[in-house]
Amino acid sequence: MTANRIAIDAMGGDNAPEAIVAGALRACSSEGPGIDPDRLLLVGDRPRLEALLAKAHLSIEIQHASQVIGMAESPSSALRAKPDSSIGGCVKAVRSGLAGAVVGMGNTGAVVGASTLGLGTLEGVRRPGIAVTMELTGQPVTIVDMGANIAPKPEHLVQYGQMGAVLMQACMQNGPDNPRVGLLNIGSEEGKGTTLLKEAQPLLERAPINFIGNVEAVDIFRNAADVVVTDGFTGNIVLKLLEGFSGFLLGLVMKELSAHKVEWGIDALGKVRKQIDYSEYGGAMLLGVNGSVVIGHGRSDAAAVSNAIGLAARAIDTGVNEAIVRGMAEPSQA
Amino acid sequence: MTANRIAIDAMGGDNAPEAIVAGALRACSSEGPGIDPDRLLLVGDRPRLEALLAKAHLSIEIQHASQVIGMAESPSSALRAKPDSSIGGCVKAVRSGLAGAVVGMGNTGAVVGASTLGLGTLEGVRRPGIAVTMELTGQPVTIVDMGANIAPKPEHLVQYGQMGAVLMQACMQNGPDNPRVGLLNIGSEEGKGTTLLKEAQPLLERAPINFIGNVEAVDIFRNAADVVVTDGFTGNIVLKLLEGFSGFLLGLVMKELSAHKVEWGIDALGKVRKQIDYSEYGGAMLLGVNGSVVIGHGRSDAAAVSNAIGLAARAIDTGVNEAIVRGMAEPSQA
Repeated sequence: MTANRIAIDAMGGDNAPEAIVAGALRACSSEGPGIDPDRLLLVGDRPRLEALLAKAHLSIEIQHASQVIGMAESPSSALRAKPDSSIGGCVKAVRSGLAGAVVGMGNTGAVVGASTLGLGTLEGVRRPGIAVTMELTGQPVTIVDMGANIAPKPEHLVQYGQMGAVLMQACMQNGPDNPRVGLLNIGSEEGKGTTLLKEAQPLLERAPINFIGNVEAVDIFRNAADVVVTDGFTGNIVLKLLEGFSGFLLGLVMKELSAHKVEWGIDALGKVRKQIDYSEYGGAMLLGVNGSVVIGHGRSDAAAVSNAIGLAARAIDTGVNEAIVRGMAEPSQA
Repeated sequence: MTANRIAIDAMGGDNAPEAIVAGALRACSSEGPGIDPDRLLLVGDRPRLEALLAKAHLSIEIQHASQVIGMAESPSSALRAKPDSSIGGCVKAVRSGLAGAVVGMGNTGAVVGASTLGLGTLEGVRRPGIAVTMELTGQPVTIVDMGANIAPKPEHLVQYGQMGAVLMQACMQNGPDNPRVGLLNIGSEEGKGTTLLKEAQPLLERAPINFIGNVEAVDIFRNAADVVVTDGFTGNIVLKLLEGFSGFLLGLVMKELSAHKVEWGIDALGKVRKQIDYSEYGGAMLLGVNGSVVIGHGRSDAAAVSNAIGLAARAIDTGVNEAIVRGMAEPSQA
């Protein structure tokens, strides 16, 4: 039985600890997913967190951590140099069985490194991958890997497909029943792409998933697949390009609207921006480690933190990791 | 002395030959770059092209070709099976010294294949790369390679940087004097990225270019570099993602505007769409082959065709290929 508590790195991210505490409070309210406050554990500087919580009507348990890993620090050396970091404290809470999930808005490399080293991989999983779920078209699409593993082997890509499918089916609200898994490529024809992709194609075809073949980048916007598998280098480029381009493009549109003195323009664009913001869906998940790990954006506000906590709770409650372990034990087709 | 004529594949692309002929006529007018009609050579089905030209007041020379390679055909087998294709005719016109440039809106793989095999590479160039220039921020940025070479070696990336810099400096209107060349990566710190990128970094530092180190995907929208170097797989993903996402995002904005009954919305968005449409800048260039080759989008309209012809003329007139050959002969720094 997995512990159902969620350890939250209260010190990680651009707006910590204020936005993290506000997000935790929101997660317990009717504005958020309505989590029982007893399920939350805030990890970080006790005096600062107590001061922030003192203003609230809710009591949330605090676990003290004296150190913080900054957004710009090198993850591996920072993890060595700061044994009492707040993200390290979250991981220890899961390893000791006190909690079942980690939520971190801080340095992504540090969240991935601390979780992978501290928790190890699930039975049968070779390499963890970062899954980001976006709801662009009205249907969610999950892309794996967004940067945990920039030089994967073909068999890692297969496991990304399997884990992404489990996440979509088990954990996502209005997720599909038999998720269609596509391989991100530069053409839809079989035999396209790099050596890695050519080697992964037959393995994906034999895997116990609904593999639909190659998909192109534009297919992300066409609801052509439910899970899109890619290497962590390409996935990270895709993610950052989407973030950068949406900000840039909406800026251009805003300028046009301002030129026409449209005052409601900000509201209209806000709605579009929300639709393409993946933190609306709870953030990224590090799939394949022995615990549920949600990675939020560094600039997360209280609403994004609350969504991330909600995703962590769903991951525990729906048994994503148990389903991944069962999936890994299923045989490939001959 | 390079021949200054431009061979245009009149049969390639979704709207051929009508849009191609209309684009050639436009290129000779004051709406377009104002090219001398004697510089143009339309390659394709003579009776159809004569019929289209009969309605115009201009006379443009036609070179007959009896075959066309379709957008969906496999490039290598189609090039073998159709020895009298219109794109093949364009390449032959350059090889025989009749023309100095090819403009093709058809099957990209066929344009690249026919040009690379038929023209060979420039002296010192190991592998051609596709350069796409966009003017997103008010300043042009060129990305190389967009898909000619999906598994490049580190030294190919260095040459992409050199060729892209020459293109920006020699050929682009309001191009920079000493173009800043960046390497597309998932972080800006040195030592980031795949083995390919780690090996390319020191070579780029020693090359006779203004190398500024790693750049991230968002930097494309921040005018942080003038030339962005990447492998053809990543470049193609980036290009298709930008195309797909801009269409998708502008669709969302349009929906919001319609909900507010804003009738000028289409005009305002049209302006934004134009700003992010790389065909406004003339299309893509295949750099490194022994001739100037401009690759337009299959769905190009007359304005896009006219821009592509203008780019081909500028490439000849400014001596891009001669400058590339000189650049390749420059020694690296010790």
